[in-house]
Amino acid sequence: MDSYRNNGLNGNFMNGNSSLRQRWNVRPSEMSKKTLNPIRAIVDGMKLTPNPEKPMIALSIGDPTVFGNMPTDDTVLQAVKEAIDSHKYNGYAPSVGYQKSREAVANFYSCPEAPLEDKDVILTSGCSQAIELAISVLCNPGDNILVPRPGFSLYKTLAVSMGIQVKHYNLLPEKSWEIDLQHLESLIDDKTACLIVNNPSNPCGSVFSREHQHKILSVASRNCIPILADEIYGDMVFPGCDFQPLAPLSSDVPILSCGGLAKRWLVPGWRMGWILIHDRNDIFGTGIREGLVKLSQRILGPCTVVQGALESILNDTPPEFYQGTISFLKSNSEICFSELSTVPGLNPVMPSGAMYIMVRIEMEHFPDFQNDVEFTERLVTEQSVFCLPATAFEYPNFFRIVVTVPEEMMIEACIRIREFCARHYRPRSQDSHELDQ
Amino acid sequence: MDSYRNNGLNGNFMNGNSSLRQRWNVRPSEMSKKTLNPIRAIVDGMKLTPNPEKPMIALSIGDPTVFGNMPTDDTVLQAVKEAIDSHKYNGYAPSVGYQKSREAVANFYSCPEAPLEDKDVILTSGCSQAIELAISVLCNPGDNILVPRPGFSLYKTLAVSMGIQVKHYNLLPEKSWEIDLQHLESLIDDKTACLIVNNPSNPCGSVFSREHQHKILSVASRNCIPILADEIYGDMVFPGCDFQPLAPLSSDVPILSCGGLAKRWLVPGWRMGWILIHDRNDIFGTGIREGLVKLSQRILGPCTVVQGALESILNDTPPEFYQGTISFLKSNSEICFSELSTVPGLNPVMPSGAMYIMVRIEMEHFPDFQNDVEFTERLVTEQSVFCLPATAFEYPNFFRIVVTVPEEMMIEACIRIREFCARHYRPRSQDSHELDQ
Repeated sequence: MDSYRNNGLNGNFMNGNSSLRQRWNVRPSEMSKKTLNPIRAIVDGMKLTPNPEKPMIALSIGDPTVFGNMPTDDTVLQAVKEAIDSHKYNGYAPSVGYQKSREAVANFYSCPEAPLEDKDVILTSGCSQAIELAISVLCNPGDNILVPRPGFSLYKTLAVSMGIQVKHYNLLPEKSWEIDLQHLESLIDDKTACLIVNNPSNPCGSVFSREHQHKILSVASRNCIPILADEIYGDMVFPGCDFQPLAPLSSDVPILSCGGLAKRWLVPGWRMGWILIHDRNDIFGTGIREGLVKLSQRILGPCTVVQGALESILNDTPPEFYQGTISFLKSNSEICFSELSTVPGLNPVMPSGAMYIMVRIEMEHFPDFQNDVEFTERLVTEQSVFCLPATAFEYPNFFRIVVTVPEEMMIEACIRIREFCARHYRPRSQDSHELDQ
Repeated sequence: MDSYRNNGLNGNFMNGNSSLRQRWNVRPSEMSKKTLNPIRAIVDGMKLTPNPEKPMIALSIGDPTVFGNMPTDDTVLQAVKEAIDSHKYNGYAPSVGYQKSREAVANFYSCPEAPLEDKDVILTSGCSQAIELAISVLCNPGDNILVPRPGFSLYKTLAVSMGIQVKHYNLLPEKSWEIDLQHLESLIDDKTACLIVNNPSNPCGSVFSREHQHKILSVASRNCIPILADEIYGDMVFPGCDFQPLAPLSSDVPILSCGGLAKRWLVPGWRMGWILIHDRNDIFGTGIREGLVKLSQRILGPCTVVQGALESILNDTPPEFYQGTISFLKSNSEICFSELSTVPGLNPVMPSGAMYIMVRIEMEHFPDFQNDVEFTERLVTEQSVFCLPATAFEYPNFFRIVVTVPEEMMIEACIRIREFCARHYRPRSQDSHELDQ
C-alpha cells in the first residue's frame, strides 16, 4: 500500500519510471476546479419547488428569446440563410474572422472620435469569449482586475480560473448605480492590470452619463490602467436616455470594447461576439494586438455562416426593430417599477436600459428570511415566481428581475410578489418597539 | 527618471499606492506570448514569392472547401436553414449543448462495446475547442502530455500555453506511421497526464489497425494514462481499409474522443465539435465530467443553429455523399503517390485515409537546400506550388501534400514537383565520389 501512496503525487524521487504508475488516478485539473459559476452554485443550492397551484414565471433568465415574444428580425434570419445559400462560408475563416466581416463591424461602430478599421476588430465566439480573450491578453496570474459590484459573474469566473485576483468596486444604487469613484481608485495598486466597465449594466439596467464616463476615464488615465468595456447592451437604452460608448470619450486610455449580436439582435445562442481595439495613442501597440490574434488561434473564431451574414445583419436590420425592442423593454420596466414601488418592503431602482431591474429588499421588514437567497427561494415555493437573488452578483439583499417576459406575465408576477411581501412584511423593530410601549 | 523605472515592475515595496503608476506600461500576457502556432511561425518566416508565369497551386491548406470541388451535401445546408426557420435555436443552449443535439451525437457514435448517452457528449466550438477542453480538464501546469511526431501542431500550441510539457513519441514511416510503442512507453513518467492519439492522422493520412490500437491501449492501461483520441478524421478512410474508433477496443482505459463536423461533413468553418466521454470503468468519475461542464461555461458552447441542425445532419446525409468524398480522396492520393513515387529524390508514403500525403525528401540528393523549409520555399519561387514543410509538424525532411484539390490541379502540381526535383537532384555524394574516381 505504501507504494500506492506515492503514486503521481510525490514526484521528487521518480523520473521516467513508469512502473510506479500502478493504479488509476485521474483528477480534474486545478483550473477546471477553479472555474466557478456563482449563479449555478447559488441556484443549484436553492430548493426551487414551485407552488403547484400557480404556473411558474421565471424572471431569472437573461435570455430574451425564451418566451417567444421577442423574436429577432426577419432580416437577421434571412441574412444567415443567404450566407448558407452562397456556399461561400463553409471553410475556415481567419481565426480573427473574415476581413469583410471585421470591416462591417468596424464600419458599424466607427465614429470620427474613435475611428475603427477591420484590423481593430477581432471576431469571437460570443461576447463571453471576447471577455475571455481580453482578460487573457491583459492579465497575468498574480495581477488583479477591478470589477463592478453588483456585476456580471463571468468576469470573476474567468479571472479566478486564471489565477487573477478580483477586486470589486462599488456601484451606488442611490446614484442610479454610478461607480463609487473614490472606492474604485482606492483599490488600484501596482498589480492592477485592467478595469472592467460594464455599461449599460447587467444586473442594474443602468446607463452612465457622459460626465460620469469622463470621470471613470480620468481615474484610468491618472493611474495608467487599460479598460475592458463590456458594452454588450450598447444602444439598448430607453428613449430620452443616451448611450455613449466609452472609447470616443477617451483621449488616451486604451480600451478593449466587447460586444456582439446576442442582446441587441436577440440571438444570444449564435455566439457571435467581437472585440473593438481602441488605441489611438498606441499604448497597446502591436504586442496586445498580436497577443489577441495568437489567442484567437486556439479555437479559430466564431461560426462562419453567421460571420458571412454579419454585414447584412448590421446594415439592413430596420431601425423599427431596435425601436420595438427598446419600447417594449421600457414599458415592461415601467410596469414593474411602478408596481413594486408601492410594495412595502421593496425598493426597485428604475433602469435606463438593458433588460433588468434591481430591487432592494428591506430585509429588516422580512424577519422570516435570512437573506435574498431565502427570500427568492420562498417566493418560488409560495408564488411560483423566480427572481435571481443578487448574491449571485456579489450584492446581497437585492434581487434581479428580467423584463423581457410578456407583459401579462410581468403584471401577474408583480401581483404575486406584492401578495408575497404583504404576507411576510413586518414593521421595523423600532416601530414595533414603539407600538409595544 | 528613477521613479519611472520602479513603476509596475518592482512591486515589493508598493501596496495600494496608485500614485506610483505614473506611466503606461501595457504588455501582452505571458500566456498570449506562449500561445505559439508553429505553422504560422514557419510560414510567416518563408519568402513565398510564386513564379509569375505559373498560377499558384496551394497544397498546403487543410481546408477541403477552398477550391469549391468538395461542397458539403445539400442535406447539411438544408438542415441549418430549417433550424433557422424553426425560430427555436436563437436563444442560449446549455453550455454543453442542447440535450437533443447531444443525444443525436451519442446515438450516431454509440455501439454495443462503447455505448454513449447524451450525458457522455459535450458539444464544443469546433474540434479545436474539444481538444482544448480535454487537455484543460486532464492536465495541470507541470504535467506532461504525449503527442505524436509528426503530428498536428495544435496539441503543442495549447499545452505550452498552459504550462504543460510536451513529449513527442515517434511515428514510423516505414510501418505506415504506426507508433513506436517502445519509444512511447519510455517517455512516460509520474507527471504524464494524458496520451494523445490521432487516428486517422494529420499530417500522415495513416489509419491504425485494430491490432496496433490494442497495443496502444495496453501501454495506456499498463501505465494508467487516460487517452485523448483526436478522431476528427474518423470514417474518412479509403475502401478496403477499416476505421476503428479507439474506445470500443478499450476495456479499462478512459478516453475522451474529440470529433466534429469539420472534415467528414466538409464544413470546418461552422465550428461544431464534440467530446465523447468513454469511461465504462468509472475512472474519470464525476470529477472529469463536472470539470468539462465547468470549462464549457466559459464561452457557452457552439452556435445554436448548427446545434439545431445536428440531428438531421447526422441522420439524413446520404451515404453516397461520404462515399463520394472518400473515393475522390483515394483517387487523388493514388495519382499523387504514383506520380511522386517515380520522382528521384522523393519518397511519398501512401495514406489510407484523411486528406494528406507525407513525402520524404532525400535531402542528401538536394544539396541546394538546407532543409524541408528551403526546399518548399524554392518550390514556390520556381513552380508556384506550395506544400507545408513537415518541420511544422516537428518532422524535418518531409513535406505534406493536401489531396483535396481538383484532380487536374493535383496532376499539374505533380508535374511541376517532378520538374523541380529533376532540376535540383544530384546523385548522392558517395555516387559522385565514385564518379570522380
